[in-house]
Amino acid sequence: MSEKEFDAGIYFIGHISTPWTTRDMCPRNPMETDKICQVILKEEFADGLKSIEGCSHILLFYWLDQADRNRLQHQPPIDDKIHGVFALRSPSRPNPIGISAADLVKVEGNVLTVRHIDCLDGTPLIDIKPYFVHADSKPDATVDWHQKRSNPLPPRG
Amino acid sequence: MSEKEFDAGIYFIGHISTPWTTRDMCPRNPMETDKICQVILKEEFADGLKSIEGCSHILLFYWLDQADRNRLQHQPPIDDKIHGVFALRSPSRPNPIGISAADLVKVEGNVLTVRHIDCLDGTPLIDIKPYFVHADSKPDATVDWHQKRSNPLPPRG
Repeated sequence: MSEKEFDAGIYFIGHISTPWTTRDMCPRNPMETDKICQVILKEEFADGLKSIEGCSHILLFYWLDQADRNRLQHQPPIDDKIHGVFALRSPSRPNPIGISAADLVKVEGNVLTVRHIDCLDGTPLIDIKPYFVHADSKPDATVDWHQKRSNPLPPRG
Repeated sequence: MSEKEFDAGIYFIGHISTPWTTRDMCPRNPMETDKICQVILKEEFADGLKSIEGCSHILLFYWLDQADRNRLQHQPPIDDKIHGVFALRSPSRPNPIGISAADLVKVEGNVLTVRHIDCLDGTPLIDIKPYFVHADSKPDATVDWHQKRSNPLPPRG
Protein backbone atom coordinates (compact mmCIF):
# COMPACT_ATOMS: atom_id res chain seq x y z
CA MET A 1 0.00 0.00 0.00
CA SER A 2 1.55 3.30 -1.02
CA GLU A 3 1.23 6.61 0.75
CA LYS A 4 -1.00 8.11 -1.95
CA GLU A 5 -3.73 5.65 -1.05
CA PHE A 6 -4.18 7.01 2.48
CA ASP A 7 -7.68 8.25 3.29
CA ALA A 8 -6.80 10.72 6.07
CA GLY A 9 -3.78 12.28 7.75
CA ILE A 10 -2.50 12.15 11.32
CA TYR A 11 -0.53 14.83 13.17
CA PHE A 12 2.01 13.77 15.77
CA ILE A 13 1.03 16.08 18.65
CA GLY A 14 3.87 15.07 20.95
CA HIS A 15 5.67 11.96 22.14
CA ILE A 16 5.81 9.53 25.04
CA SER A 17 8.95 9.07 27.09
CA THR A 18 9.27 5.59 28.64
CA PRO A 19 12.10 3.46 30.08
CA TRP A 20 11.85 0.95 27.18
CA THR A 21 14.16 1.41 24.21
CA THR A 22 13.67 -1.95 22.44
CA ARG A 23 10.50 -3.93 21.72
CA ASP A 24 11.76 -6.83 23.83
CA MET A 25 11.99 -4.53 26.85
CA CYS A 26 8.39 -3.33 26.60
CA PRO A 27 5.87 -4.74 29.05
CA ARG A 28 3.33 -7.06 27.42
CA ASN A 29 0.49 -4.84 28.55
CA PRO A 30 0.17 -1.53 30.41
CA MET A 31 -0.76 -3.16 33.74
CA GLU A 32 2.46 -5.19 33.88
CA THR A 33 4.35 -2.08 34.90
CA ASP A 34 3.87 0.87 37.21
CA LYS A 35 6.98 2.69 35.99
CA ILE A 36 6.55 6.45 35.71
CA CYS A 37 6.42 7.72 32.11
CA GLN A 38 6.00 11.16 30.61
CA VAL A 39 3.76 12.42 27.86
CA ILE A 40 5.24 15.51 26.25
CA LEU A 41 2.77 17.52 24.18
CA LYS A 42 4.09 19.96 21.58
CA GLU A 43 3.69 23.54 22.85
CA GLU A 44 1.31 24.42 20.01
CA PHE A 45 -1.28 21.96 21.39
CA ALA A 46 -0.85 22.79 25.11
CA ASP A 47 -4.11 24.84 25.30
CA GLY A 48 -5.97 21.57 24.73
CA LEU A 49 -4.91 20.37 28.21
CA LYS A 50 -7.13 22.82 30.15
CA SER A 51 -9.03 20.88 32.90
CA ILE A 52 -7.12 17.64 32.32
CA GLU A 53 -5.54 17.89 35.78
CA GLY A 54 -8.93 16.85 37.21
CA CYS A 55 -8.87 13.48 35.39
CA SER A 56 -7.71 10.50 37.45
CA HIS A 57 -7.23 8.39 34.29
CA ILE A 58 -6.72 9.29 30.64
CA LEU A 59 -6.85 7.38 27.38
CA LEU A 60 -3.57 7.88 25.53
CA PHE A 61 -3.51 7.22 21.79
CA TYR A 62 -0.16 6.73 20.11
CA TRP A 63 1.23 5.73 16.75
CA LEU A 64 3.17 2.46 16.63
CA ASP A 65 5.40 3.56 13.82
CA GLN A 66 7.50 0.38 13.74
CA ALA A 67 4.53 -1.93 13.19
CA ASP A 68 3.85 -4.10 10.14
CA ARG A 69 0.71 -2.59 8.58
CA ASN A 70 0.16 -5.38 6.07
CA ARG A 71 -0.25 -8.33 8.42
CA LEU A 72 -3.86 -9.37 9.13
CA GLN A 73 -3.25 -12.52 11.17
CA HIS A 74 -0.63 -13.28 13.76
CA GLN A 75 0.34 -15.93 16.32
CA PRO A 76 0.88 -14.07 19.61
CA PRO A 77 3.65 -15.26 21.98
CA ILE A 78 1.05 -16.27 24.57
CA ASP A 79 -0.85 -18.71 22.34
CA ASP A 80 -0.15 -21.51 19.88
CA LYS A 81 -3.02 -20.47 17.60
CA ILE A 82 -3.23 -17.81 14.91
CA HIS A 83 -5.70 -14.96 15.45
CA GLY A 84 -6.82 -11.95 13.45
CA VAL A 85 -5.17 -8.63 14.31
CA PHE A 86 -8.58 -7.18 15.27
CA ALA A 87 -8.83 -9.84 18.01
CA LEU A 88 -5.28 -9.00 19.23
CA ARG A 89 -3.58 -5.99 20.82
CA SER A 90 -0.46 -6.53 18.70
CA PRO A 91 1.00 -3.39 17.06
CA SER A 92 0.55 -5.10 13.66
CA ARG A 93 -2.67 -3.78 12.07
CA PRO A 94 -3.63 -1.60 9.09
CA ASN A 95 -3.64 1.55 11.27
CA PRO A 96 -1.07 1.02 14.05
CA ILE A 97 -2.86 2.96 16.77
CA GLY A 98 -1.95 2.00 20.33
CA ILE A 99 -4.06 2.86 23.35
CA SER A 100 -3.45 2.83 27.09
CA ALA A 101 -5.77 3.76 29.94
CA ALA A 102 -3.16 5.48 32.09
CA ASP A 103 -3.18 6.85 35.63
CA LEU A 104 -2.60 10.59 35.44
CA VAL A 105 -0.12 11.38 38.23
CA LYS A 106 0.79 15.02 37.56
CA VAL A 107 0.42 17.83 35.02
CA GLU A 108 3.15 20.44 34.61
CA GLY A 109 2.68 22.74 31.63
CA ASN A 110 2.72 20.57 28.51
CA VAL A 111 4.10 17.50 30.32
CA LEU A 112 1.89 14.78 31.82
CA THR A 113 3.37 12.28 34.25
CA VAL A 114 1.56 8.94 33.93
CA ARG A 115 1.62 5.28 34.93
CA HIS A 116 0.60 2.15 32.99
CA ILE A 117 2.03 2.74 29.55
CA ASP A 118 3.69 -0.07 27.60
CA CYS A 119 5.09 1.61 24.48
CA LEU A 120 8.62 2.24 23.28
CA ASP A 121 10.47 5.39 24.30
CA GLY A 122 9.81 8.18 21.81
CA THR A 123 6.50 6.78 20.49
CA PRO A 124 4.52 9.55 18.74
CA LEU A 125 1.41 10.78 20.60
CA ILE A 126 -1.76 11.30 18.54
CA ASP A 127 -4.62 11.94 21.01
CA ILE A 128 -5.58 12.20 24.69
CA LYS A 129 -9.10 11.71 26.06
CA PRO A 130 -10.57 11.72 29.57
CA TYR A 131 -11.60 8.26 30.83
CA PHE A 132 -15.31 8.13 31.65
CA VAL A 133 -16.40 5.11 33.72
CA HIS A 134 -19.96 5.11 32.33
CA ALA A 135 -18.73 4.67 28.76
CA ASP A 136 -15.27 3.10 29.04
CA SER A 137 -15.31 0.65 31.95
CA LYS A 138 -16.61 -2.84 31.10
CA PRO A 139 -15.68 -5.00 34.09
CA ASP A 140 -17.46 -8.09 32.71
CA ALA A 141 -15.79 -8.17 29.27
CA THR A 142 -14.31 -11.49 28.15
CA VAL A 143 -11.99 -12.61 25.34
CA ASP A 144 -12.45 -16.29 24.63
CA TRP A 145 -9.09 -17.05 22.94
CA HIS A 146 -7.22 -15.26 25.74
CA GLN A 147 -8.94 -17.28 28.46
CA LYS A 148 -7.98 -20.49 26.61
CA ARG A 149 -4.45 -19.41 25.62
CA SER A 150 -1.73 -22.04 25.71
CA ASN A 151 1.04 -20.01 27.31
CA PRO A 152 0.25 -17.56 30.12
CA LEU A 153 3.74 -16.00 30.15
CA PRO A 154 4.95 -14.19 33.21
CA PRO A 155 5.22 -10.41 32.95
CA ARG A 156 8.50 -8.91 31.73
CA GLY A 157 7.73 -5.22 32.51
CA MET B 1 -2.68 23.05 8.61
CA SER B 2 -2.30 21.64 5.12
CA GLU B 3 -2.24 18.02 4.09
CA LYS B 4 1.47 18.03 3.30
CA GLU B 5 2.22 18.58 6.98
CA PHE B 6 0.68 15.26 8.06
CA ASP B 7 3.05 12.93 9.89
CA ALA B 8 1.31 9.62 9.09
CA GLY B 9 -1.53 8.23 7.00
CA ILE B 10 -4.75 6.45 7.94
CA TYR B 11 -6.64 3.86 5.90
CA PHE B 12 -10.40 3.68 6.16
CA ILE B 13 -10.89 -0.06 6.69
CA GLY B 14 -14.69 0.00 6.59
CA HIS B 15 -17.58 2.04 7.93
CA ILE B 16 -20.16 2.08 10.71
CA SER B 17 -23.86 1.97 9.96
CA THR B 18 -26.01 3.66 12.65
CA PRO B 19 -29.56 5.10 12.87
CA TRP B 20 -28.20 8.68 13.23
CA THR B 21 -27.87 10.80 10.09
CA THR B 22 -27.31 14.26 11.66
CA ARG B 23 -25.07 15.31 14.56
CA ASP B 24 -28.11 16.47 16.56
CA MET B 25 -29.58 12.98 16.38
CA CYS B 26 -26.46 11.29 17.79
CA PRO B 27 -26.54 10.15 21.41
CA ARG B 28 -24.27 12.18 23.69
CA ASN B 29 -22.34 9.08 24.64
CA PRO B 30 -22.38 5.41 23.64
CA MET B 31 -24.23 4.29 26.80
CA GLU B 32 -27.21 6.55 26.10
CA THR B 33 -28.41 4.14 23.44
CA ASP B 34 -28.75 0.40 22.99
CA LYS B 35 -29.75 0.63 19.34
CA ILE B 36 -28.25 -2.07 17.14
CA CYS B 37 -25.54 -0.80 14.76
CA GLN B 38 -23.36 -2.53 12.18
CA VAL B 39 -19.66 -2.36 11.54
CA ILE B 40 -18.90 -3.24 7.92
CA LEU B 41 -15.27 -4.10 7.28
CA LYS B 42 -13.93 -3.93 3.72
CA GLU B 43 -13.49 -7.45 2.32
CA GLU B 44 -9.73 -6.97 1.96
CA PHE B 45 -9.37 -6.72 5.77
CA ALA B 46 -11.80 -9.51 6.72
CA ASP B 47 -9.01 -12.01 7.58
CA GLY B 48 -8.18 -9.74 10.52
CA LEU B 49 -11.44 -10.74 12.23
CA LYS B 50 -10.40 -14.34 13.00
CA SER B 51 -11.26 -15.13 16.69
CA ILE B 52 -13.17 -11.87 17.23
CA GLU B 53 -16.41 -13.78 17.69
CA GLY B 54 -15.14 -14.80 21.14
CA CYS B 55 -14.93 -11.18 22.34
CA SER B 56 -17.87 -9.94 24.42
CA HIS B 57 -16.78 -6.30 23.95
CA ILE B 58 -14.61 -4.57 21.37
CA LEU B 59 -12.97 -1.17 21.12
CA LEU B 60 -14.05 0.48 17.89
CA PHE B 61 -11.93 3.30 16.51
CA TYR B 62 -13.44 5.61 13.91
CA TRP B 63 -12.61 8.81 12.10
CA LEU B 64 -14.83 11.81 12.85
CA ASP B 65 -14.37 13.35 9.43
CA GLN B 66 -16.72 16.29 10.06
CA ALA B 67 -14.82 17.54 13.11
CA ASP B 68 -12.98 20.86 13.47
CA ARG B 69 -9.31 19.86 13.79
CA ASN B 70 -8.05 23.34 14.69
CA ARG B 71 -10.03 23.94 17.88
CA LEU B 72 -8.12 23.31 21.13
CA GLN B 73 -10.71 24.52 23.66
CA HIS B 74 -14.45 24.18 23.70
CA GLN B 75 -17.47 24.81 25.93
CA PRO B 76 -19.44 21.55 25.95
CA PRO B 77 -23.27 21.67 26.03
CA ILE B 78 -23.29 20.12 29.51
CA ASP B 79 -21.15 22.81 31.19
CA ASP B 80 -20.85 26.59 31.34
CA LYS B 81 -17.06 26.45 31.46
CA ILE B 82 -14.49 26.09 28.68
CA HIS B 83 -12.27 23.02 28.70
CA GLY B 84 -9.38 21.75 26.60
CA VAL B 85 -10.24 19.20 23.91
CA PHE B 86 -7.98 16.63 25.61
CA ALA B 87 -10.25 16.81 28.70
CA LEU B 88 -13.36 16.39 26.50
CA ARG B 89 -14.81 13.63 24.31
CA SER B 90 -15.86 16.19 21.68
CA PRO B 91 -15.08 15.27 18.04
CA SER B 92 -13.05 18.53 17.81
CA ARG B 93 -9.36 17.70 18.28
CA PRO B 94 -6.19 17.67 16.15
CA ASN B 95 -6.71 14.00 15.20
CA PRO B 96 -10.48 13.35 15.20
CA ILE B 97 -10.37 9.75 16.41
CA GLY B 98 -13.54 8.48 18.09
CA ILE B 99 -13.67 5.41 20.30
CA SER B 100 -16.49 3.28 21.68
CA ALA B 101 -16.34 0.20 23.89
CA ALA B 102 -19.14 -1.69 22.17
CA ASP B 103 -20.99 -4.91 22.99
CA LEU B 104 -20.30 -7.41 20.21
CA VAL B 105 -23.66 -9.06 19.45
CA LYS B 106 -22.94 -11.07 16.32
CA VAL B 107 -20.31 -11.66 13.61
CA GLU B 108 -21.34 -12.63 10.07
CA GLY B 109 -18.51 -12.59 7.54
CA ASN B 110 -17.15 -9.05 7.41
CA VAL B 111 -20.12 -7.53 9.31
CA LEU B 112 -20.16 -7.05 13.09
CA THR B 113 -23.44 -6.32 14.85
CA VAL B 114 -22.81 -4.13 17.92
CA ARG B 115 -24.49 -2.04 20.62
CA HIS B 116 -23.34 1.20 22.30
CA ILE B 117 -22.05 3.28 19.42
CA ASP B 118 -22.78 7.01 19.20
CA CYS B 119 -21.40 8.07 15.83
CA LEU B 120 -23.05 9.29 12.63
CA ASP B 121 -24.19 6.83 10.00
CA GLY B 122 -21.39 6.16 7.52
CA THR B 123 -18.53 7.11 9.85
CA PRO B 124 -15.24 5.62 8.58
CA LEU B 125 -13.81 2.74 10.64
CA ILE B 126 -10.07 2.78 11.37
CA ASP B 127 -9.37 0.01 13.92
CA ILE B 128 -10.92 -2.72 16.07
CA LYS B 129 -9.34 -4.15 19.23
CA PRO B 130 -10.49 -6.73 21.80
CA TYR B 131 -11.45 -5.21 25.17
CA PHE B 132 -9.30 -6.63 28.00
CA VAL B 133 -10.62 -5.99 31.51
CA HIS B 134 -7.16 -6.08 33.10
CA ALA B 135 -5.91 -3.20 30.95
CA ASP B 136 -9.02 -1.29 29.87
CA SER B 137 -11.48 -1.29 32.76
CA LYS B 138 -10.95 1.45 35.36
CA PRO B 139 -14.08 1.43 37.51
CA ASP B 140 -12.74 4.09 39.90
CA ALA B 141 -11.81 6.73 37.29
CA THR B 142 -13.07 10.27 37.90
CA VAL B 143 -13.28 13.47 35.82
CA ASP B 144 -13.50 16.49 38.08
CA TRP B 145 -15.08 19.00 35.64
CA HIS B 146 -17.72 16.45 34.64
CA GLN B 147 -18.72 15.77 38.25
CA LYS B 148 -19.13 19.55 38.78
CA ARG B 149 -20.79 20.31 35.43
CA SER B 150 -23.55 22.91 35.39
CA ASN B 151 -26.02 21.14 33.12
CA PRO B 152 -26.52 17.39 33.40
CA LEU B 153 -28.65 17.15 30.25
CA PRO B 154 -31.00 14.23 29.77
CA PRO B 155 -29.99 11.70 27.13
CA ARG B 156 -31.20 12.21 23.56
CA GLY B 157 -30.13 8.81 22.09
